[in-house]
Amino acid sequence: MNFYVMTLFPEMIDAVMRESIIGRAVQNGLLSVKTYNIRDYAFNKHSRVDDYPYGGGAGMLMQAEPVWQTYEAICRDAGCDALPVIYLTPKGRTFSQDHAAKIARLDHVVLLCGHYEGIDERVLEEIVTDEISIGDYVLTGGEIPAMAVIDAVARLIPGVLHNDESAETESFSNGLLEYPQYTRPEVWHDRSVPEVLLSGHHANVEHWRHMEALKATAVRRPDLIDPETLTSQELEAVSDILKR
Amino acid sequence: MNFYVMTLFPEMIDAVMRESIIGRAVQNGLLSVKTYNIRDYAFNKHSRVDDYPYGGGAGMLMQAEPVWQTYEAICRDAGCDALPVIYLTPKGRTFSQDHAAKIARLDHVVLLCGHYEGIDERVLEEIVTDEISIGDYVLTGGEIPAMAVIDAVARLIPGVLHNDESAETESFSNGLLEYPQYTRPEVWHDRSVPEVLLSGHHANVEHWRHMEALKATAVRRPDLIDPETLTSQELEAVSDILKR
Repeated sequence: MNFYVMTLFPEMIDAVMRESIIGRAVQNGLLSVKTYNIRDYAFNKHSRVDDYPYGGGAGMLMQAEPVWQTYEAICRDAGCDALPVIYLTPKGRTFSQDHAAKIARLDHVVLLCGHYEGIDERVLEEIVTDEISIGDYVLTGGEIPAMAVIDAVARLIPGVLHNDESAETESFSNGLLEYPQYTRPEVWHDRSVPEVLLSGHHANVEHWRHMEALKATAVRRPDLIDPETLTSQELEAVSDILKR
Repeated sequence: MNFYVMTLFPEMIDAVMRESIIGRAVQNGLLSVKTYNIRDYAFNKHSRVDDYPYGGGAGMLMQAEPVWQTYEAICRDAGCDALPVIYLTPKGRTFSQDHAAKIARLDHVVLLCGHYEGIDERVLEEIVTDEISIGDYVLTGGEIPAMAVIDAVARLIPGVLHNDESAETESFSNGLLEYPQYTRPEVWHDRSVPEVLLSGHHANVEHWRHMEALKATAVRRPDLIDPETLTSQELEAVSDILKR
């Protein structure tokens, strides 16, 4: 899987992609993340990439041509005539785990990070195949969203996570938030680990975890629960919470 | 505004916070971002911070004590008995622009980045005051979410954005996605800037932009539009889109 990131701040991306699980995956050749500085493709005296918007208004816009030239350079490097381009923007579709899984099936993906007030619409029309927002909040640029997308996608690539980092039981994989977890020592700051987790009774542990996950979800994210799919015991456990 | 980040990967945060608009704000003394490596507060031979979960299951958990010791160190450095702690986790409330505005009013905020399968619940009960998820997708750790929160909050602090980066017209500030924007040249790849933006007629420009923002929102995020608040002209412009 090859990511190509078009950005004005390649150092931000490069630094993060060297670290942690993603850094290890890059070293092991499971994915590559190449950054392209859009400023390097601005063919004018001061490497300017921005200009005032037609029609007036605050802010500067990124011009079409440097973005286009950067895209062309990436296509040449990838040996492809055209590549899927994801533009990170608050205007995009809200990113989700399903979306990450779809991207993980691609061989090459270009991520376009905006800055200033935006990018000339015409180059977006010409190259962008998908627009992603990572949430309903505004950031200073597309770099952090691009890293979020790379991270969410990369961990779905076979071999990137080791067994002890297994994604199986994590939030969203079964539609519920995660149950509380405990590790040694048995008592910490006068707080004990719940008895059932020390019992060694596998079925009871599973049952307790499932009910705790359900309750946590009812409290924090009731929108993720469809009461009609619950058993009568589950419904009893969360009905008081959902009524509040 | 002072951010304190508890993490196993301080280099990720440090590198990003040196760059771009946030880097400038830090240099200008408008905000500070200090990172604390949780591993430095693991007082055992191999600086181990993780252990197996009680009750079994895949993955490792971060232990309570190193997290607690890191928090104590931050409180000492900040000269406070207690500090608000935001835990970045898919279990948290979904982050939003309103949430960012509330955090921007605080003087000190601690951000706790999880890794592995999670953190011992007892230390979360003891120190965490708020749990934030940046969206419904799973990442390898809390570092990228922490950066997203810092970035969204920082740009709301007076003086961080310059006038030419003004937040006023941006997505979500008026409940609609942004209208398309254009800059020089007037014709690029046979695509012309819309006539109205060259007219110099301010009211027409505003009207065009509003209608384009409304249409873009209807196409991409119909959930942000309440048809009952629209004028009849607005309703006519988007009713075909909303019906699809």
